[in-house]
Amino acid sequence: MIEAAHDLGVFVELAGEPRSGAELARALDADPRAMSVLLDALCAYDLLVEDGNARYALPAELRECLLPDGLFSLVGKIEYDRTLAWRAWRNLADTVRAGTRVEDGSDAPNQIGETEYRSLVHGINFWAPPIVNVLAGALAERGWTPRRPVSLVDVGCGSGIYSHLLLRRFPALTATGIDVRRIMPLALAQADRLGVADRFRPAVMDFWSEDWGLGYDLALFVNIFHLQTPASAEELLRRAAKSLAGGGLVAVVDQIVTGDAHSAQNRFSRLFAASMLATGGGGAYRTEDYDRWLDGAGLTRVALLDTPMHRVLLAGPR
Amino acid sequence: MIEAAHDLGVFVELAGEPRSGAELARALDADPRAMSVLLDALCAYDLLVEDGNARYALPAELRECLLPDGLFSLVGKIEYDRTLAWRAWRNLADTVRAGTRVEDGSDAPNQIGETEYRSLVHGINFWAPPIVNVLAGALAERGWTPRRPVSLVDVGCGSGIYSHLLLRRFPALTATGIDVRRIMPLALAQADRLGVADRFRPAVMDFWSEDWGLGYDLALFVNIFHLQTPASAEELLRRAAKSLAGGGLVAVVDQIVTGDAHSAQNRFSRLFAASMLATGGGGAYRTEDYDRWLDGAGLTRVALLDTPMHRVLLAGPR
Repeated sequence: MIEAAHDLGVFVELAGEPRSGAELARALDADPRAMSVLLDALCAYDLLVEDGNARYALPAELRECLLPDGLFSLVGKIEYDRTLAWRAWRNLADTVRAGTRVEDGSDAPNQIGETEYRSLVHGINFWAPPIVNVLAGALAERGWTPRRPVSLVDVGCGSGIYSHLLLRRFPALTATGIDVRRIMPLALAQADRLGVADRFRPAVMDFWSEDWGLGYDLALFVNIFHLQTPASAEELLRRAAKSLAGGGLVAVVDQIVTGDAHSAQNRFSRLFAASMLATGGGGAYRTEDYDRWLDGAGLTRVALLDTPMHRVLLAGPR
Repeated sequence: MIEAAHDLGVFVELAGEPRSGAELARALDADPRAMSVLLDALCAYDLLVEDGNARYALPAELRECLLPDGLFSLVGKIEYDRTLAWRAWRNLADTVRAGTRVEDGSDAPNQIGETEYRSLVHGINFWAPPIVNVLAGALAERGWTPRRPVSLVDVGCGSGIYSHLLLRRFPALTATGIDVRRIMPLALAQADRLGVADRFRPAVMDFWSEDWGLGYDLALFVNIFHLQTPASAEELLRRAAKSLAGGGLVAVVDQIVTGDAHSAQNRFSRLFAASMLATGGGGAYRTEDYDRWLDGAGLTRVALLDTPMHRVLLAGPR
């Protein structure tokens, strides 16, 4: 229903004044009765509110999610779902029959092409605020202050939302965001929007073959490890270890599975793994896997922090 | 994920002993890693349980829902979703654009064909027990006792589950179930299974043109009214009124919308209306609509009872 309302332009039409079902149907060239049924159903989920005079409004707290230009807009996610996720989930049984591994034992490339990745890169910004709260708290406990000049490298930064929110929390921080050329304009525009462009350095490169630079206080990987094979995960941690200053930390934000099957994070990781199975590629790794890879990279785990749907693993030199 | 597990045969395979992911993959000709991801995701929703030794089991309380021969099996609903609901929801925006009314002002015929209806007729049995509890309580308050010989006509009885559960509650009750020829074998088999076949009389007929009989203590309509137009709803109530014994009641179990927009039943009715919009046909009517139709049929509302997702309207002679 959210997708249908988005397709029809309901949310954008409600960005201004509340409107009646008839007004919306007229403006959006839809059937009045059918439009009312859809609007009422969105009200049942509190995604719209009706003012008692049969006029519908978009609640203020949902604008950032449901309008296309919101910082936490789900519009990219909606478009990704329309173009890719429906088919992938519909065909899940076939995927379970065939598996996703190709002959060399690695995962088949996932189905997310360039267009979907551009859609998705902003569409998952909504995860960032609670994760940045937890991470920033942990960094503050470890001596990051507003005045201390620190630096981070955000490997596969996407929209850069994690760097950008950390830059706002730590005014003397500078961040290097690594990603491919087609993504970087999105990250730069967002840095500008959030007023941190002067301390966000874009680094267009292939993070497998090129040099990340040296002397970082933090190497940050957000939702990067679930796309790795065990071999590539260890290699990433080796590269991270080499890039750190003395006392520097690695932060991995991801689905990180512990022994407690019933925690919210572990339940979510299982659903996320199923989603990755449906759309091809990726897996949710366990703390033991991370500990082994860290060991191979000369690092050791120093903290494992819960956020609503992810965990944050902090590691430092052994 | 439930559908994929059903398609693959996971639930049936787990009807016996707990099995490992590898055993299930082998038995069902699926990829072992992909199977494990699916099984773990089903555990995240408590639809399967893992015994700690990586063996998966189907919880006892879900067998009636997830196995094909359970009385409250969702298998028919799953098959309906696979063949019809996915496409209908995917195309919801187009449906809202075009509307569902055909030129004469009535709804377009819904997309549910014979095969889907047969699937669905058992697939919605799960709604019945809490509704029958509420209805049986109301009938007991109005003088139905285990020994009193009473009779009901169940108009559009489908699987007959409401009649059958009422027959179990009231040992001196007899029920006449009206439905089309292709459905009746399902109702008869279920009456037999529930041990009430001797008091369940099948009446294969078109309930618009043929005679329902006379002298019933209860005329029961479960999920019939949401498929009516206002004109056909009033006509059904006129026919019901004619079929009643002195002091007889009409019971309408359906989405019945009241003024309280935030009640669970009203929220559900809005989602149900959206579902009807997606698959074509039907609507959720308001108490005022029912009161007007009742008045036209010489009846008056005597009670409106809440069940978890439906309401039960009781009416008697004015």
